[in-house]
Amino acid sequence: MSLKRIVVVLYENYETLDVFGPVEVLGHLDNYQLEFVSFMGGIIKSTQKVEMVTKPFSEIEKIDILLIPGGRGAEILTSNVEFIEGIALLAKKSEYILTVCTGSVLLAKTGLLDNKKATSNKMAFEWVCSQREEVIWVKEARWVRSGNYYTSSGVSAGIDMALGFISDLYSMSFATYIARDMEYSWNPDKTIDEFFKYY
Amino acid sequence: MSLKRIVVVLYENYETLDVFGPVEVLGHLDNYQLEFVSFMGGIIKSTQKVEMVTKPFSEIEKIDILLIPGGRGAEILTSNVEFIEGIALLAKKSEYILTVCTGSVLLAKTGLLDNKKATSNKMAFEWVCSQREEVIWVKEARWVRSGNYYTSSGVSAGIDMALGFISDLYSMSFATYIARDMEYSWNPDKTIDEFFKYY
Repeated sequence: MSLKRIVVVLYENYETLDVFGPVEVLGHLDNYQLEFVSFMGGIIKSTQKVEMVTKPFSEIEKIDILLIPGGRGAEILTSNVEFIEGIALLAKKSEYILTVCTGSVLLAKTGLLDNKKATSNKMAFEWVCSQREEVIWVKEARWVRSGNYYTSSGVSAGIDMALGFISDLYSMSFATYIARDMEYSWNPDKTIDEFFKYY
Repeated sequence: MSLKRIVVVLYENYETLDVFGPVEVLGHLDNYQLEFVSFMGGIIKSTQKVEMVTKPFSEIEKIDILLIPGGRGAEILTSNVEFIEGIALLAKKSEYILTVCTGSVLLAKTGLLDNKKATSNKMAFEWVCSQREEVIWVKEARWVRSGNYYTSSGVSAGIDMALGFISDLYSMSFATYIARDMEYSWNPDKTIDEFFKYY
Protein backbone atom coordinates (compact mmCIF):
# COMPACT_ATOMS: atom_id res chain seq x y z
CA MET A 1 0.00 0.00 0.00
CA SER A 2 1.47 3.36 -0.95
CA LEU A 3 -1.25 5.85 -0.01
CA LYS A 4 -3.36 4.33 2.74
CA ARG A 5 -6.92 5.55 2.84
CA ILE A 6 -8.20 5.13 6.39
CA VAL A 7 -11.95 5.54 6.84
CA VAL A 8 -13.59 5.71 10.28
CA VAL A 9 -17.33 5.05 10.67
CA LEU A 10 -19.03 7.33 13.19
CA TYR A 11 -22.61 7.39 14.52
CA GLU A 12 -24.35 9.17 17.40
CA ASN A 13 -23.02 7.86 20.74
CA TYR A 14 -19.92 6.17 19.40
CA GLU A 15 -17.29 5.53 22.08
CA THR A 16 -14.47 8.10 21.94
CA LEU A 17 -11.44 5.89 22.62
CA ASP A 18 -12.68 3.14 20.26
CA VAL A 19 -11.93 5.65 17.52
CA PHE A 20 -8.95 7.67 18.70
CA GLY A 21 -6.93 4.81 20.20
CA PRO A 22 -6.55 3.07 16.81
CA VAL A 23 -6.25 6.45 15.03
CA GLU A 24 -3.26 7.30 17.26
CA VAL A 25 -1.61 3.98 16.31
CA LEU A 26 -2.41 4.16 12.58
CA GLY A 27 -1.30 7.79 12.62
CA HIS A 28 2.28 6.50 12.82
CA LEU A 29 2.05 5.23 9.22
CA ASP A 30 3.63 7.31 6.47
CA ASN A 31 1.55 8.83 3.75
CA TYR A 32 -2.04 8.15 4.73
CA GLN A 33 -5.35 9.92 4.43
CA LEU A 34 -7.87 9.93 7.28
CA GLU A 35 -11.62 10.36 6.71
CA PHE A 36 -14.57 10.25 9.10
CA VAL A 37 -17.89 9.09 7.70
CA SER A 38 -21.45 8.64 8.92
CA PHE A 39 -24.60 7.37 7.23
CA MET A 40 -25.90 10.82 6.30
CA GLY A 41 -22.77 12.93 6.95
CA GLY A 42 -22.72 16.03 9.18
CA ILE A 43 -21.71 16.52 12.81
CA ILE A 44 -21.66 13.36 14.94
CA LYS A 45 -21.22 13.33 18.73
CA SER A 46 -19.70 10.60 20.90
CA THR A 47 -21.07 9.53 24.28
CA GLN A 48 -18.19 11.58 25.73
CA LYS A 49 -19.38 14.67 23.76
CA VAL A 50 -16.66 14.74 21.10
CA GLU A 51 -18.15 16.24 17.93
CA MET A 52 -16.68 15.32 14.57
CA VAL A 53 -17.49 16.53 11.07
CA THR A 54 -18.24 13.57 8.77
CA LYS A 55 -18.85 12.82 5.09
CA PRO A 56 -21.81 10.62 4.11
CA PHE A 57 -21.19 6.90 3.41
CA SER A 58 -22.16 7.50 -0.23
CA GLU A 59 -19.11 9.71 -0.91
CA ILE A 60 -16.60 6.99 -0.13
CA GLU A 61 -14.97 5.00 -2.92
CA LYS A 62 -11.95 2.78 -2.25
CA ILE A 63 -10.84 2.09 1.33
CA ASP A 64 -7.58 0.58 2.54
CA ILE A 65 -8.41 0.41 6.25
CA LEU A 66 -11.98 0.65 7.56
CA LEU A 67 -12.40 1.24 11.32
CA ILE A 68 -15.75 0.60 12.99
CA PRO A 69 -15.96 1.66 16.66
CA GLY A 70 -18.44 0.46 19.24
CA GLY A 71 -20.47 2.46 21.69
CA ARG A 72 -23.88 2.90 23.22
CA GLY A 73 -25.20 4.04 19.86
CA ALA A 74 -24.41 0.68 18.24
CA GLU A 75 -27.30 -1.19 19.87
CA ILE A 76 -30.12 0.67 18.11
CA LEU A 77 -28.28 0.49 14.78
CA THR A 78 -28.18 -3.32 14.79
CA SER A 79 -31.85 -3.29 13.69
CA ASN A 80 -31.41 -0.47 11.17
CA VAL A 81 -31.40 -2.33 7.84
CA GLU A 82 -30.25 0.62 5.75
CA PHE A 83 -27.35 1.39 8.08
CA ILE A 84 -26.20 -2.26 8.08
CA GLU A 85 -26.42 -2.34 4.28
CA GLY A 86 -24.28 0.81 4.28
CA ILE A 87 -21.69 -0.92 6.48
CA ALA A 88 -21.71 -3.95 4.13
CA LEU A 89 -21.05 -1.68 1.13
CA LEU A 90 -18.16 0.07 2.91
CA ALA A 91 -16.73 -3.29 4.02
CA LYS A 92 -16.81 -4.62 0.46
CA LYS A 93 -14.79 -1.57 -0.67
CA SER A 94 -12.15 -2.19 2.01
CA GLU A 95 -8.85 -4.03 1.99
CA TYR A 96 -8.79 -4.44 5.80
CA ILE A 97 -11.60 -4.05 8.31
CA LEU A 98 -10.94 -3.30 11.99
CA THR A 99 -13.75 -3.23 14.54
CA VAL A 100 -13.61 -2.29 18.22
CA CYS A 101 -16.01 -3.36 20.98
CA THR A 102 -19.65 -3.53 19.79
CA GLY A 103 -18.50 -2.26 16.39
CA SER A 104 -17.98 -6.01 15.78
CA VAL A 105 -21.74 -6.51 16.03
CA LEU A 106 -22.40 -3.89 13.37
CA LEU A 107 -20.06 -5.78 11.04
CA ALA A 108 -21.49 -9.17 12.10
CA LYS A 109 -25.00 -8.02 11.16
CA THR A 110 -23.88 -7.78 7.51
CA GLY A 111 -23.18 -11.52 7.49
CA LEU A 112 -19.56 -10.94 6.47
CA LEU A 113 -18.28 -12.52 9.70
CA ASP A 114 -20.42 -15.69 9.36
CA ASN A 115 -18.40 -18.84 10.14
CA LYS A 116 -15.44 -16.66 11.08
CA LYS A 117 -13.90 -16.15 14.52
CA ALA A 118 -14.48 -12.73 16.07
CA THR A 119 -14.58 -11.00 19.45
CA SER A 120 -16.22 -7.98 21.05
CA ASN A 121 -16.88 -6.16 24.33
CA LYS A 122 -16.87 -8.49 27.34
CA MET A 123 -19.54 -6.76 29.44
CA ALA A 124 -22.07 -7.09 26.59
CA PHE A 125 -20.81 -10.46 25.37
CA GLU A 126 -24.03 -12.47 25.73
CA TRP A 127 -25.96 -9.82 23.86
CA VAL A 128 -23.21 -9.75 21.21
CA CYS A 129 -23.49 -13.53 20.61
CA SER A 130 -27.29 -13.33 20.39
CA GLN A 131 -27.07 -10.74 17.62
CA ARG A 132 -25.50 -13.09 15.06
CA GLU A 133 -25.18 -16.72 16.03
CA GLU A 134 -23.49 -17.65 12.72
CA VAL A 135 -20.29 -15.93 13.91
CA ILE A 136 -17.79 -18.00 15.92
CA TRP A 137 -17.59 -15.61 18.88
CA VAL A 138 -14.42 -16.00 20.98
CA LYS A 139 -14.84 -14.75 24.54
CA GLU A 140 -11.25 -14.94 25.80
CA ALA A 141 -9.34 -12.81 23.31
CA ARG A 142 -7.91 -9.31 23.34
CA TRP A 143 -8.47 -9.32 19.59
CA VAL A 144 -9.08 -11.85 16.81
CA ARG A 145 -7.81 -11.91 13.25
CA SER A 146 -9.81 -13.76 10.59
CA GLY A 147 -8.09 -13.02 7.29
CA ASN A 148 -8.58 -9.33 6.58
CA TYR A 149 -11.05 -8.89 9.45
CA TYR A 150 -9.70 -7.75 12.82
CA THR A 151 -12.18 -7.56 15.71
CA SER A 152 -11.26 -6.42 19.19
CA SER A 153 -12.59 -6.55 22.70
CA GLY A 154 -13.78 -3.37 24.47
CA VAL A 155 -12.47 0.19 24.06
CA SER A 156 -8.73 0.04 24.94
CA ALA A 157 -8.38 -3.33 23.23
CA GLY A 158 -8.65 -1.39 19.97
CA ILE A 159 -5.17 0.01 20.66
CA ASP A 160 -3.70 -3.50 21.14
CA MET A 161 -5.46 -4.70 17.99
CA ALA A 162 -4.23 -1.75 15.90
CA LEU A 163 -0.68 -2.50 17.07
CA GLY A 164 -1.22 -6.19 16.19
CA PHE A 165 -2.46 -5.12 12.75
CA ILE A 166 0.72 -3.03 12.24
CA SER A 167 2.80 -6.01 13.37
CA ASP A 168 1.07 -8.32 10.83
CA LEU A 169 1.17 -5.81 7.99
CA TYR A 170 4.67 -4.42 8.59
CA SER A 171 6.71 -5.88 11.46
CA MET A 172 6.70 -6.57 15.18
CA SER A 173 9.57 -4.12 15.60
CA PHE A 174 7.56 -1.29 14.02
CA ALA A 175 4.59 -2.10 16.29
CA THR A 176 6.87 -2.19 19.34
CA TYR A 177 8.41 1.14 18.32
CA ILE A 178 4.95 2.74 18.08
CA ALA A 179 3.84 1.31 21.45
CA ARG A 180 6.99 2.67 23.08
CA ASP A 181 6.54 6.05 21.40
CA MET A 182 3.02 6.10 22.90
CA GLU A 183 4.41 4.91 26.27
CA TYR A 184 1.73 2.22 25.99
CA SER A 185 2.06 -1.17 27.72
CA TRP A 186 1.10 -3.19 24.69
CA ASN A 187 -0.19 -6.71 25.16
CA PRO A 188 1.14 -8.28 21.92
CA ASP A 189 -0.47 -11.68 22.60
CA LYS A 190 -4.03 -11.46 21.33
CA THR A 191 -5.10 -14.57 23.25
CA ILE A 192 -4.36 -12.97 26.64
CA ASP A 193 -7.47 -11.17 27.88
CA GLU A 194 -7.65 -10.18 31.53
CA PHE A 195 -11.18 -8.79 31.22
CA PHE A 196 -13.23 -11.76 30.01
CA LYS A 197 -13.33 -13.20 33.54
CA TYR A 198 -15.00 -10.11 35.05
CA TYR A 199 -18.24 -10.59 33.17
CA MET B 1 -18.43 20.24 41.66
CA SER B 2 -21.93 20.02 40.22
CA LEU B 3 -21.50 21.00 36.58
CA LYS B 4 -17.94 20.29 35.57
CA ARG B 5 -16.60 22.48 32.83
CA ILE B 6 -13.82 20.58 31.05
CA VAL B 7 -11.68 22.66 28.70
CA VAL B 8 -9.12 21.07 26.36
CA VAL B 9 -6.33 23.18 24.84
CA LEU B 10 -5.54 22.33 21.22
CA TYR B 11 -2.85 23.62 18.84
CA GLU B 12 -1.54 22.51 15.45
CA ASN B 13 0.19 19.12 15.74
CA TYR B 14 -1.21 18.16 19.12
CA GLU B 15 -0.97 14.42 19.84
CA THR B 16 -4.34 12.69 19.34
CA LEU B 17 -4.34 10.24 22.25
CA ASP B 18 -3.02 12.88 24.70
CA VAL B 19 -6.44 14.45 24.27
CA PHE B 20 -8.88 11.61 23.73
CA GLY B 21 -7.47 9.20 26.32
CA PRO B 22 -8.24 11.57 29.22
CA VAL B 23 -11.48 12.70 27.51
CA GLU B 24 -12.66 9.06 27.44
CA VAL B 25 -11.95 8.76 31.19
CA LEU B 26 -13.46 12.13 32.17
CA GLY B 27 -16.43 11.34 29.93
CA HIS B 28 -17.57 8.90 32.63
CA LEU B 29 -18.42 11.81 34.95
CA ASP B 30 -22.05 12.89 35.27
CA ASN B 31 -23.16 16.30 34.18
CA TYR B 32 -20.16 17.87 32.50
CA GLN B 33 -19.52 20.22 29.62
CA LEU B 34 -16.65 19.65 27.19
CA GLU B 35 -15.03 22.47 25.23
CA PHE B 36 -12.07 22.55 22.88
CA VAL B 37 -10.08 25.78 22.67
CA SER B 38 -7.12 27.14 20.75
CA PHE B 39 -5.31 30.47 20.84
CA MET B 40 -7.25 32.00 17.93
CA GLY B 41 -10.09 29.46 17.61
CA GLY B 42 -10.98 27.67 14.34
CA ILE B 43 -10.10 24.24 13.01
CA ILE B 44 -7.03 22.62 14.58
CA LYS B 45 -5.38 19.43 13.28
CA SER B 46 -3.43 16.82 15.25
CA THR B 47 -0.26 15.14 13.99
CA GLN B 48 -2.54 12.14 13.27
CA LYS B 49 -4.80 14.37 11.12
CA VAL B 50 -7.76 14.66 13.50
CA GLU B 51 -9.44 18.02 12.89
CA MET B 52 -11.37 19.67 15.71
CA VAL B 53 -13.42 22.85 15.80
CA THR B 54 -12.24 25.14 18.62
CA LYS B 55 -13.23 28.35 20.39
CA PRO B 56 -10.59 31.03 21.02
CA PHE B 57 -8.89 31.21 24.46
CA SER B 58 -10.54 34.63 25.00
CA GLU B 59 -14.06 33.15 25.09
CA ILE B 60 -13.38 30.96 28.12
CA GLU B 61 -14.44 32.07 31.58
CA LYS B 62 -14.42 29.64 34.51
CA ILE B 63 -12.85 26.19 34.15
CA ASP B 64 -13.16 23.19 36.43
CA ILE B 65 -10.73 20.89 34.63
CA LEU B 66 -8.15 22.18 32.14
CA LEU B 67 -6.42 19.56 29.95
CA ILE B 68 -3.22 20.46 28.08
CA PRO B 69 -1.95 17.76 25.68
CA GLY B 70 1.55 17.40 24.31
CA GLY B 71 2.65 16.79 20.77
CA ARG B 72 5.11 17.83 18.10
CA GLY B 73 3.48 21.24 17.94
CA ALA B 74 4.36 22.01 21.57
CA GLU B 75 8.06 22.64 20.90
CA ILE B 76 7.63 25.78 18.79
CA LEU B 77 5.02 27.16 21.21
CA THR B 78 7.42 27.13 24.16
CA SER B 79 8.98 30.32 22.75
CA ASN B 80 5.65 31.95 21.84
CA VAL B 81 5.20 34.51 24.64
CA GLU B 82 1.57 35.34 23.80
CA PHE B 83 0.56 31.67 23.70
CA ILE B 84 2.24 30.96 27.06
CA GLU B 85 0.53 34.02 28.56
CA GLY B 86 -2.74 32.60 27.23
CA ILE B 87 -2.03 29.27 28.95
CA ALA B 88 -1.25 31.12 32.21
CA LEU B 89 -4.59 32.96 32.02
CA LEU B 90 -6.50 29.73 31.39
CA ALA B 91 -4.62 27.98 34.22
CA LYS B 92 -5.49 30.78 36.66
CA LYS B 93 -9.20 30.32 35.79
CA SER B 94 -8.98 26.57 36.49
CA GLU B 95 -9.73 24.47 39.55
CA TYR B 96 -7.61 21.54 38.33
CA ILE B 97 -4.97 21.41 35.61
CA LEU B 98 -4.01 18.17 33.87
CA THR B 99 -1.15 18.01 31.38
CA VAL B 100 0.00 15.11 29.23
CA CYS B 101 3.46 14.54 27.72
CA THR B 102 5.09 17.80 26.53
CA GLY B 103 1.91 19.64 27.53
CA SER B 104 3.71 19.81 30.89
CA VAL B 105 6.35 22.05 29.30
CA LEU B 106 3.71 24.49 28.05
CA LEU B 107 2.41 24.78 31.61
CA ALA B 108 5.95 24.92 33.06
CA LYS B 109 6.78 27.89 30.81
CA THR B 110 4.16 29.97 32.67
CA GLY B 111 6.16 29.58 35.90
CA LEU B 112 3.17 28.02 37.66
CA LEU B 113 5.06 24.75 38.20
CA ASP B 114 8.17 26.41 39.69
CA ASN B 115 9.41 24.56 42.79
CA LYS B 116 6.75 21.91 42.21
CA LYS B 117 7.23 18.28 41.19
CA ALA B 118 6.15 17.41 37.65
CA THR B 119 6.79 14.88 34.90
CA SER B 120 6.59 14.67 31.11
CA ASN B 121 7.43 12.57 28.06
CA LYS B 122 10.43 10.30 28.60
CA MET B 123 11.94 10.40 25.11
CA ALA B 124 12.20 14.19 25.27
CA PHE B 125 13.01 14.37 28.98
CA GLU B 126 16.36 16.19 28.75
CA TRP B 127 14.83 18.83 26.53
CA VAL B 128 11.86 19.07 28.93
CA CYS B 129 14.16 19.75 31.92
CA SER B 130 16.12 22.37 29.97
CA GLN B 131 12.94 24.32 29.22
CA ARG B 132 12.28 25.30 32.84
CA GLU B 133 14.91 24.39 35.38
CA GLU B 134 12.89 25.84 38.28
CA VAL B 135 10.52 22.85 38.08
CA ILE B 136 11.39 19.73 40.09
CA TRP B 137 11.20 17.31 37.15
CA VAL B 138 10.66 13.67 38.17
CA LYS B 139 11.87 11.20 35.56
CA GLU B 140 10.56 7.92 36.98
CA ALA B 141 6.83 8.57 37.33
CA ARG B 142 3.75 7.59 35.34
CA TRP B 143 2.21 10.81 36.59
CA VAL B 144 2.82 13.37 39.36
CA ARG B 145 0.35 15.28 41.51
CA SER B 146 1.38 18.62 43.01
CA GLY B 147 -1.74 20.03 44.64
CA ASN B 148 -4.18 20.86 41.86
CA TYR B 149 -1.61 20.24 39.13
CA TYR B 150 -1.45 16.78 37.54
CA THR B 151 1.31 16.16 35.00
CA SER B 152 1.77 12.88 33.15
CA SER B 153 4.38 11.07 31.16
CA GLY B 154 3.90 10.43 27.42
CA VAL B 155 0.65 9.86 25.50
CA SER B 156 -0.99 6.77 27.12
CA ALA B 157 0.13 7.91 30.58
CA GLY B 158 -2.59 10.55 30.30
CA ILE B 159 -5.16 7.76 30.67
CA ASP B 160 -3.53 6.50 33.89
CA MET B 161 -3.30 10.06 35.22
CA ALA B 162 -6.93 10.82 34.44
CA LEU B 163 -7.94 7.65 36.30
CA GLY B 164 -5.70 8.71 39.21
CA PHE B 165 -7.37 12.13 39.19
CA ILE B 166 -10.81 10.45 39.36
CA SER B 167 -9.54 8.29 42.21
CA ASP B 168 -8.32 11.36 44.16
CA LEU B 169 -11.42 13.45 43.46
CA TYR B 170 -14.04 10.71 43.89
CA SER B 171 -12.84 7.22 44.84
CA MET B 172 -10.56 4.39 43.85
CA SER B 173 -13.60 2.19 43.24
CA PHE B 174 -15.04 4.67 40.71
CA ALA B 175 -11.66 4.85 38.93
CA THR B 176 -11.41 1.05 38.90
CA TYR B 177 -14.95 0.81 37.53
CA ILE B 178 -14.08 3.20 34.67
CA ALA B 179 -10.85 1.34 33.85
CA ARG B 180 -12.74 -1.94 33.70
CA ASP B 181 -15.49 -0.41 31.57
CA MET B 182 -12.74 0.70 29.17
CA GLU B 183 -11.08 -2.75 29.42
CA TYR B 184 -7.94 -0.78 30.26
CA SER B 185 -5.09 -2.28 32.31
CA TRP B 186 -4.75 0.68 34.60
CA ASN B 187 -1.48 1.19 36.46
CA PRO B 188 -2.86 2.81 39.65
CA ASP B 189 0.60 3.38 41.16
CA LYS B 190 1.88 6.65 39.73
CA THR B 191 5.47 5.90 40.80
CA ILE B 192 5.69 2.82 38.56
CA ASP B 193 6.97 3.84 35.14
CA GLU B 194 8.25 1.16 32.81
CA PHE B 195 9.25 3.66 30.11
CA PHE B 196 11.75 5.96 31.86
CA LYS B 197 14.48 3.32 31.46
CA TYR B 198 14.24 3.20 27.65
CA TYR B 199 15.50 6.74 27.18
